[in-house]
Amino acid sequence: MSLLLKTQNSSHKSDFTVQTTLAGRGCFVASPVIFGDILFLSKTNSIHSDMFKDATRGQINKAMTAAHTAFATYKTKSGRERAAFLRAIADGIEALGDPLIETAMAETHLPKARLEGERGRTCFQLRQMADTLAEGSWCEATIDTALPDRQPLPRPDLRKMLVPMGTVVVFGSSNFPLAYSAAGVDTASALAAGCSVVVKAHPAHPQTSKMVADAIEKAIKKTKMPKGVYQHVFGASQKVGKTLVQHPLAAAVGFTGSFAGGKALFDLAAKRPVPIPVFSEMGSTNPVVILPKTLATDFEKTAAQLASSMTLGMGQFCTQPGLIFIENTEGGQKFIQSLAKEMGKIAPAMMLHAGICQSFNAKSQQVLTQNGVKLVGKAAKTANEGEATPSVATVAAAEFLKNPTLHQEVFGPFSLVVVSEDKAQTLEVLRHLEGQLTATLIGSEAEIGDNLDIAAALQNICGRLVFNGVPTGVEVANAMVHGGPFPATTDPRFTSVGPSAIKRWVRPVSFQNCPDAFLPEELKAANLLSIWRMVNGNWQK
Amino acid sequence: MSLLLKTQNSSHKSDFTVQTTLAGRGCFVASPVIFGDILFLSKTNSIHSDMFKDATRGQINKAMTAAHTAFATYKTKSGRERAAFLRAIADGIEALGDPLIETAMAETHLPKARLEGERGRTCFQLRQMADTLAEGSWCEATIDTALPDRQPLPRPDLRKMLVPMGTVVVFGSSNFPLAYSAAGVDTASALAAGCSVVVKAHPAHPQTSKMVADAIEKAIKKTKMPKGVYQHVFGASQKVGKTLVQHPLAAAVGFTGSFAGGKALFDLAAKRPVPIPVFSEMGSTNPVVILPKTLATDFEKTAAQLASSMTLGMGQFCTQPGLIFIENTEGGQKFIQSLAKEMGKIAPAMMLHAGICQSFNAKSQQVLTQNGVKLVGKAAKTANEGEATPSVATVAAAEFLKNPTLHQEVFGPFSLVVVSEDKAQTLEVLRHLEGQLTATLIGSEAEIGDNLDIAAALQNICGRLVFNGVPTGVEVANAMVHGGPFPATTDPRFTSVGPSAIKRWVRPVSFQNCPDAFLPEELKAANLLSIWRMVNGNWQK
Repeated sequence: MSLLLKTQNSSHKSDFTVQTTLAGRGCFVASPVIFGDILFLSKTNSIHSDMFKDATRGQINKAMTAAHTAFATYKTKSGRERAAFLRAIADGIEALGDPLIETAMAETHLPKARLEGERGRTCFQLRQMADTLAEGSWCEATIDTALPDRQPLPRPDLRKMLVPMGTVVVFGSSNFPLAYSAAGVDTASALAAGCSVVVKAHPAHPQTSKMVADAIEKAIKKTKMPKGVYQHVFGASQKVGKTLVQHPLAAAVGFTGSFAGGKALFDLAAKRPVPIPVFSEMGSTNPVVILPKTLATDFEKTAAQLASSMTLGMGQFCTQPGLIFIENTEGGQKFIQSLAKEMGKIAPAMMLHAGICQSFNAKSQQVLTQNGVKLVGKAAKTANEGEATPSVATVAAAEFLKNPTLHQEVFGPFSLVVVSEDKAQTLEVLRHLEGQLTATLIGSEAEIGDNLDIAAALQNICGRLVFNGVPTGVEVANAMVHGGPFPATTDPRFTSVGPSAIKRWVRPVSFQNCPDAFLPEELKAANLLSIWRMVNGNWQK
Repeated sequence: MSLLLKTQNSSHKSDFTVQTTLAGRGCFVASPVIFGDILFLSKTNSIHSDMFKDATRGQINKAMTAAHTAFATYKTKSGRERAAFLRAIADGIEALGDPLIETAMAETHLPKARLEGERGRTCFQLRQMADTLAEGSWCEATIDTALPDRQPLPRPDLRKMLVPMGTVVVFGSSNFPLAYSAAGVDTASALAAGCSVVVKAHPAHPQTSKMVADAIEKAIKKTKMPKGVYQHVFGASQKVGKTLVQHPLAAAVGFTGSFAGGKALFDLAAKRPVPIPVFSEMGSTNPVVILPKTLATDFEKTAAQLASSMTLGMGQFCTQPGLIFIENTEGGQKFIQSLAKEMGKIAPAMMLHAGICQSFNAKSQQVLTQNGVKLVGKAAKTANEGEATPSVATVAAAEFLKNPTLHQEVFGPFSLVVVSEDKAQTLEVLRHLEGQLTATLIGSEAEIGDNLDIAAALQNICGRLVFNGVPTGVEVANAMVHGGPFPATTDPRFTSVGPSAIKRWVRPVSFQNCPDAFLPEELKAANLLSIWRMVNGNWQK
């Protein structure tokens, strides 16, 4: 089973002011204030709560030490016990009811339905991880039994499985205040793996984050998990993130956000005395190629689909289709006109916070002022302050090839249509694209069959290859890959969505001639957990 | 099936002189000359063959470009075709016959039986990888079929599998001129994955490496693999390695050797404009804990076992037991006496090359001059020039805790026995050890049962936990882990021995709503390859 996040375009408005110190999704926000139950972000720099202060070095050390201490006990909990804990967290989040949604709405400008959908996704992820633990094959239990009579030397008994690495530092993301935040997929997968977790709340939604963290605390008590297995710290400055990643007790890092933020954490981790793995998901431009014959007939339908995908959630998804590749045909021109028309229909709306909106305006303007770039369509309605104006531009492939600025992600409701003179030029352009989370190919089956070189070029650079669809909408499923070659992520070998996200936080250990009594349950001779295991090269249950 | 490398202690002698520019296993050797069929290393700096010149930037670029071009075709070869290629390489290496062994003997000072065993292991690894491709579950084929009627949105068809990442740069290791070299486990696993490979031959055995590379060339022709899929370059300077790792067409790096070399490559790769994964296996001290009750009775047998393991192949294995932990009991003292006595019986012998021998002498002397360290036993026979003298020393745990120099690997036949006053001190010491390839616990089942905290402390820091055995002897098996936390390797999530070594060179790709005709064979609706796949959460074949 899997569940898709249902989202709507935001039309929510607000007069909150958010000040940022870094642009992009991973940005840091300063000086919000709470009034009553609802969070408001003040225009002053006064700080009214710990929630809006940077965690001190002492607080971070305390959190890391508590999580590290809890790890020693938590990792010995059975999959069944960890599954019960994850389910209790999901139950606890649901029990928070409307106040959680209202708080998130106030902090993020996201509409109610979108946040309710995201809550559903968050709880689904936690429960799917619990199901994965129950199924058990995720730990890759592998057994080679002893061959005492083998010549020239006996073979020992070897039994291998994946074990948790330690304390995982998780950075909440601004654009998913629930699903990639305090109890988001990084936390869920790390806790499922048997790791303890220290979350740095995203400063754009600290109160939402804290409410969820409190629900996790309750679940810890309810399911008798070791105190300290989950820690939640606040911080708006880069110093807090740096201190966490450099802390000697950190074993791995999960991040979803801007390239600048994700790459900085990767660099810090690589330079530690003991380097640790970092999975930073840093977004991408999610190229879409529309084949010419299909475009000749389907230009209108395809334009409507893509307009909807590129402006979904005000374009604030890492899978937003930022680059669209077509050939310079009559159908192609009609597609551009249709897309421009669709853009006109979409209303400007508030972005997650003012910093993201400023960054969107600056980056889309930067693209629009490049040589050969032409604005062809935008929202008819004028944007108010803090709102983004959905828009679309075109550029010739020859210009695109020459100009790296046009290859960059513009986080928000903006896409660039790149027009090739022929297929050879399309292929040339695709071969110069960087790593992507997704790539999409739109065409009839027959036309795709004639263009498998284009499909291959797209597959080369992405984690997920979509046929005749849109890249937005990331299924939480076993077969999902939300990852991809750099700069989409810092490690193409992993995914941050779906049960395989666990693999980021585990390492294999082999037990040689270990007495059965001391083996983990997953590896004992009697397969009491009834899990799939590879025994002497054969899969058995 | 799996095969253990049978090894003997070397008593081979030689008057070759090798000059090194870097110490340790990953060292670089300068100025060898060939006379007839046998390689001699000259005392001059004259260079007589390309084999002993650094590859130029142009040659490296040519090799990388050829491998990258071949990758586009090679990755489309089926598992069956790649398996045939790997088997043809194994056949070709065997067909080289005695001249290969003789060349390797001349280049490495390793004895005939050891090299014949290593050739067996090398061919076994290639064929085991071929078997792994035939079995097929390695690629983690995962399918979630469409749910068109799901509410609120339909679920698309998603199909995921592991695909090769590109061109892998492999650094041959000095201590395994066949099994970790031109057609060693890094090459075998990368070719199995569908990657193209560029090997930098280790300068301590360039001729052996070239003979194997030629056998691979023949296998490429025989099995009609794309020209250029395997490239072999020479180089003794750090510049060659640096140019390879920094080359834009490199997708990943495999290295086995010294900490200095492996860490330098890791740092270079992390600093690239596009960082790439590096798996450096950098060795370890392979701690062995012997429990006191067992030692009281088994001191003599255990000493004999460990003496043999620590001097196997003149201690030139990354799994050599360099640190032995005991308690200060009567049995402990008898064990030290027995181990010292065993050391006296073992003859000094040539190491792989003079640079390694010099490094061994310097490092063991450094340890012996530290506060509280006492030499308790050494080979009775005096070593000739270039030979290493097997030896063993002791130190109190309190001194060991204070002195990081004592924690370092001494590559060669030297071990340090660390003596604790009680179990609490043993645990304290174990908690301060760095990451290891292996850790070993020796004790009766009952005594281990009373010391599970010690077992847990050892498991925390290693990739393979051995019970009542010795760490040397690395099975080539599905359940093997030859890896471990830093500084044993640069990524604890992988192994470099066994079929799982493939996982270092692959990344997952998800196909969304891909027409069946265009899916890879592994993911098509009809499971024509008859491989294990996870379909809608259930394993099926």
